[in-house]
Amino acid sequence: MSLLNHTHDPAARSWLESANAAVCDFPIQNLPFCVFRRRGSDESYRGGVAIGDQVIDLAQLGATAALQGLAAEAAQAGAGASLNPLMALGPAAWQALRHGLFDLLKAGAAGAAVDALRGCLVAQAQVEYTVPAQIGDYTDFYTSVHHATNIGKLFRPDSPLLPNYKWVPIGYHGRASSIGISGQAFPRPKGQLKAPDAETPVLAPSKRMDIELELGIFIGQGNEQGDPIGIEGAEDHVFGICLLNDWSARDIQAWEYQPLGPFLSKNFASTISPWIVTLEALAPYRVPFTRPEGDPQPLPYLDSAANRAGGAFDIQLQVGLLTEQMRAAGQSDAQICRTSYRHAYWTVAQMVTHHTINGCNLQPGDLFGSGTLSGPTLDQAGALIELTGGGKNPIALPNGERRTFLEDGDAVVIRGWCEQAGAARIGFGECWGQLLPARA
Amino acid sequence: MSLLNHTHDPAARSWLESANAAVCDFPIQNLPFCVFRRRGSDESYRGGVAIGDQVIDLAQLGATAALQGLAAEAAQAGAGASLNPLMALGPAAWQALRHGLFDLLKAGAAGAAVDALRGCLVAQAQVEYTVPAQIGDYTDFYTSVHHATNIGKLFRPDSPLLPNYKWVPIGYHGRASSIGISGQAFPRPKGQLKAPDAETPVLAPSKRMDIELELGIFIGQGNEQGDPIGIEGAEDHVFGICLLNDWSARDIQAWEYQPLGPFLSKNFASTISPWIVTLEALAPYRVPFTRPEGDPQPLPYLDSAANRAGGAFDIQLQVGLLTEQMRAAGQSDAQICRTSYRHAYWTVAQMVTHHTINGCNLQPGDLFGSGTLSGPTLDQAGALIELTGGGKNPIALPNGERRTFLEDGDAVVIRGWCEQAGAARIGFGECWGQLLPARA
Repeated sequence: MSLLNHTHDPAARSWLESANAAVCDFPIQNLPFCVFRRRGSDESYRGGVAIGDQVIDLAQLGATAALQGLAAEAAQAGAGASLNPLMALGPAAWQALRHGLFDLLKAGAAGAAVDALRGCLVAQAQVEYTVPAQIGDYTDFYTSVHHATNIGKLFRPDSPLLPNYKWVPIGYHGRASSIGISGQAFPRPKGQLKAPDAETPVLAPSKRMDIELELGIFIGQGNEQGDPIGIEGAEDHVFGICLLNDWSARDIQAWEYQPLGPFLSKNFASTISPWIVTLEALAPYRVPFTRPEGDPQPLPYLDSAANRAGGAFDIQLQVGLLTEQMRAAGQSDAQICRTSYRHAYWTVAQMVTHHTINGCNLQPGDLFGSGTLSGPTLDQAGALIELTGGGKNPIALPNGERRTFLEDGDAVVIRGWCEQAGAARIGFGECWGQLLPARA
Repeated sequence: MSLLNHTHDPAARSWLESANAAVCDFPIQNLPFCVFRRRGSDESYRGGVAIGDQVIDLAQLGATAALQGLAAEAAQAGAGASLNPLMALGPAAWQALRHGLFDLLKAGAAGAAVDALRGCLVAQAQVEYTVPAQIGDYTDFYTSVHHATNIGKLFRPDSPLLPNYKWVPIGYHGRASSIGISGQAFPRPKGQLKAPDAETPVLAPSKRMDIELELGIFIGQGNEQGDPIGIEGAEDHVFGICLLNDWSARDIQAWEYQPLGPFLSKNFASTISPWIVTLEALAPYRVPFTRPEGDPQPLPYLDSAANRAGGAFDIQLQVGLLTEQMRAAGQSDAQICRTSYRHAYWTVAQMVTHHTINGCNLQPGDLFGSGTLSGPTLDQAGALIELTGGGKNPIALPNGERRTFLEDGDAVVIRGWCEQAGAARIGFGECWGQLLPARA
């Protein structure tokens, strides 16, 4: 059964010309969700959908007769300051809205409904975004075996990849309150640091500030406590995917993380992109989920034919670094990593099912992090600690600067997109964040 | 400076006779908060305050003229289905409400305001409770050095107490969605289990279901991201304390917890008591925070004169177990543990300050767990894994049954109270939960 339908037709075009550009993150085949308002205004935040260089205002659209039935209901559920009500409606509603918008936006569409939608467009250049959901719980996974191995070598040279890794989709709970939207800037965190040869720790600003290139997975419909979500229906509980930078203070982490895991080394800030791309839009980029020769197959509860056939996604990912010097010189960010989500060792469906196998209840708006998405080679590593061999081998930037860890003022951007012959480009936009100096 | 005032007078009595009983958890000196409604009704949940065997309905009271000024504002903020708005008002408002209620409830008080309050009483026997706050984030700490040592011996015989323990108030993020109110019943969780001699894990119901005796600390006012809460003012951010059972599946935990900490072994259910006891009510039970001879003193950011003088609380804690056999025979629960919070290695104020030292933002309604509050001797251990030496030495119950870990149908109750000569008893009520059989 193909997951593709007319909304995936790469030849489809919109009457909105900016959506038809050769390289556009938001063509008519994408239609990702956000929460926005006009920049600097005191308007209420409300849901929006990207098309070309515009945002469709769902609050305004939901008040018109442009959409009918489930699509209209979905638009109205997306009218508030968080997308949780829309997320709770489930995949039929999300699809109805995406298809309804597609039909109104496609080249040649005309009539009162199209005119109504045209009146609901706001230029992306004029808006600001906020975290698109009330995130009840945030769970960070650890789905890159390459990252787990690389970082394991640094933290535990004697046992880099632990025996449970190939069986358990390892995850842990993170902090929801400090998740911010692209553009988040935060002071260098202080914490307890202990040098290997020091007798006692000291309180000081972190000296080993790092990034983690991740994807964020927003949960749509939840489950009742005690009622696990089977792998077959797991993706029906996923609203969509965004970009995520899980900033990390490696020196705080090294001293605090035993035995209960990372805490203050992570929870000062995590940054997500404004746009949530639906799984339906990503359907052309599904790839088989496979295990390297010799690795164990997942336990039956984490295995399904659909997951094997297309449970992984080929999402291109890139990390750029923009230093103060580069900014002052008018330069753009320099690429420090390039990889794909296809290398992940566990799929989105497996994360959902594993998280609930014990009866844990998910709720609309919950966020999963994929874990750092390092690929198999060094230039595909999604964290500075890996790229620099634990801070020993600085990376060189095009302007001659070098970096082991982040310096004050450094900004980091994550970009994500899908692209291949015979399919429309599906973009995720950008996820920016900036490290400010520690407060006095 | 004494923290005591007229509301701590042990001789104070109420015109409500049930509040003056010789052993009463809720005398006029306590006045803890809850969220409740009439049992089995479709009424809205709203805030309440315990006095004797009654609950004061804050929604109803806030609509009268019984209280004035800040106390009235606080009662109105407590009128909704979660106490977050009241929590956000801060300690002056909490105190104004507690003092206002004290004055209306004390023996001899009379007049229209007292009559109005009398009309807002609902019998505790007729109500049901719900989780009293929208818990944005739940953080579990690890503040008992005895628990850390005991469990460390079982999980890591070679290094039971890790080098960071005496420096870092170890904590990790937990799951907010699965926190339930006293009376919570949940199926035995399934998960990956791997026997030490097995080649591969299997999916099966946990065989090592355990409890963790903890206190829960509700945050009142939060802090801005990037803006740590210093130790001097830390307690001003604490709304109050409840009882907490952090149910744990030890076999799932043993296999999953490396390297990122406990996850599915904990997040299927956590149970709290309905009542939140304020720090003001607990003032007579403050005790000095001291470190054993030879242990390091806390780093300066975790140290203050007030914390040393009275940062700890002498809260008596008891765990009871009620098996199906005992229930069928009409017996009461059997005590399996008895200890005090005074043995904790880190204080409430230190938890607040440490959690925010990196700029992490707390929000009203956030919940901290104290970690398992095992005392220095074996019968003071707050978890079965400790009480039974890792499941090797079953405990004997009065009816002849034996337990290593929980069996299906077992109910567990945590009780907490403060009691000493020259002060009124301050009770926490009870925190009940029950393990049901695994679902098919």
